[in-house]
Amino acid sequence: MAYLDHIHACNNADLSRYARFRIDTLPVGAVRPEFAAALIRLGEDFFVRDENGDYGFAPHILTVADRNQILVKATETLCQQGVIKHLHGEKFDIRNHVSDEPLCQLDRFAMPYFGCRSWGVHMNGFVRKPDGIHMWGAKRAMDKPTYPGMLDNMVAGGQPTGLGFRENMIKECAEEAGIPSGLAANITAIGTVSYLYETNEGLKPDVMVNFDLELPEDFIPQCTDGEVERFDLLPIADVAEIVRTGFDFKFNCALVVIDFLIRHGHLTADNEPSYCELVTGLHRAFEL
Amino acid sequence: MAYLDHIHACNNADLSRYARFRIDTLPVGAVRPEFAAALIRLGEDFFVRDENGDYGFAPHILTVADRNQILVKATETLCQQGVIKHLHGEKFDIRNHVSDEPLCQLDRFAMPYFGCRSWGVHMNGFVRKPDGIHMWGAKRAMDKPTYPGMLDNMVAGGQPTGLGFRENMIKECAEEAGIPSGLAANITAIGTVSYLYETNEGLKPDVMVNFDLELPEDFIPQCTDGEVERFDLLPIADVAEIVRTGFDFKFNCALVVIDFLIRHGHLTADNEPSYCELVTGLHRAFEL
Repeated sequence: MAYLDHIHACNNADLSRYARFRIDTLPVGAVRPEFAAALIRLGEDFFVRDENGDYGFAPHILTVADRNQILVKATETLCQQGVIKHLHGEKFDIRNHVSDEPLCQLDRFAMPYFGCRSWGVHMNGFVRKPDGIHMWGAKRAMDKPTYPGMLDNMVAGGQPTGLGFRENMIKECAEEAGIPSGLAANITAIGTVSYLYETNEGLKPDVMVNFDLELPEDFIPQCTDGEVERFDLLPIADVAEIVRTGFDFKFNCALVVIDFLIRHGHLTADNEPSYCELVTGLHRAFEL
Repeated sequence: MAYLDHIHACNNADLSRYARFRIDTLPVGAVRPEFAAALIRLGEDFFVRDENGDYGFAPHILTVADRNQILVKATETLCQQGVIKHLHGEKFDIRNHVSDEPLCQLDRFAMPYFGCRSWGVHMNGFVRKPDGIHMWGAKRAMDKPTYPGMLDNMVAGGQPTGLGFRENMIKECAEEAGIPSGLAANITAIGTVSYLYETNEGLKPDVMVNFDLELPEDFIPQCTDGEVERFDLLPIADVAEIVRTGFDFKFNCALVVIDFLIRHGHLTADNEPSYCELVTGLHRAFEL
């Protein structure tokens, strides 16, 4: 296999299987036929299908508060019916751009069913040693509901309603790895990585907003909230080899590592045949 | 205006105006109707139009050497005819991916007429001072044939046949800014920026292969080869403001600066409304 296989794995979605989900005239998501049918079965006070075959809220649902009320009722009912497997409790904003006002809020675990864009924050923790860069990685706890036991970036989290990205990243640094806020204040925003991924639940058109954090050699992260089994510090070449040769990393975290390898000069146009395709593949735009 | 306007300015090409240029069955470029007609006027020993309306070499032109011979004859004739304005003398490889074997070589100034992909190297020279990052910029000489007097990255150059990217970047560092090879050896590959630009001459589907170079505070670049009138070291916020508010930078160099601003945390998801669109816009993939 090759680095490029991770780009393909994270961009496995076949949009032809989906119908649009709109709010007013704005496409904000994409639903599978079976989920769309479940939405319609909730009754015409909830969701409707328009003449174009697009799905959306019933016409009398006009405000953010109206939409939120309907979404809470709908997701709870669909969860009782087994259509949605689990709810998370944490809410994500529905919007197409981070600068847009949120159109409503939806349970984090319901996001892929509606196929709405979501944002997360990922942090590359690294140490500069005499022999080069070493990267911190996390092994996800075996009892995590999603991707148990897989490798992860040092710190990562979803972007919930009402927080800034930097603020959220610093909060996650404390919660997931015990990084004190004074040290976490050194995080540097370094860009995004985006992908269009399809799961059993639905569509994930996701953007990861990423940060680097250079750490002192003597800093040891702590598994604070139980989401991580173990942190390991590895030479950058070893991390690269893990990514290049397998799928040990959670699907999207592999992309964040590849982006780090590119930005820090480990992969170059002279040593990686797919260098240019990796850079464009990590940063794809998508329309829903 | 806004940072995003630079993305739009560099992606102004209307591909519907172009016909494909193929080598065997591989699309490698795109030609405007008037240039395509000039190719056909050279005679059927040179170029032909196929049943799909695509253009390519005459059927007996089969090897790299054959193609190179025809391209030299064709570009010289077209230059005498005034169809191609100038030739440069330096050759660029024709290929679709940096890892492909070159299919032939073409004069650098003839590249946009054939609309073939080309690669360049750009270097962000910067200094870390107590008050933050300062960036070196270059003002192009007033007698340069292209974009005279415009602002440029500290060092940049086309990617000629037969050199590695890193090797080329180090060579340009010496030629354009008098950076000794010992210092230039500290360049770090940091990714690419790509765009699909249209000029009076034709199409530029270009990839810039970029490097950062952190310089000591006391290093002063020298205008070695006369291509640069002046180098200036400015606080990153001043460089950002020049880019945000105007088109003083050469079109593609503005993108390299925006990429630097993003990778070094000057622009973030919290302070720039178009952050996510800038990142995807800087790294677009394109098919010819």
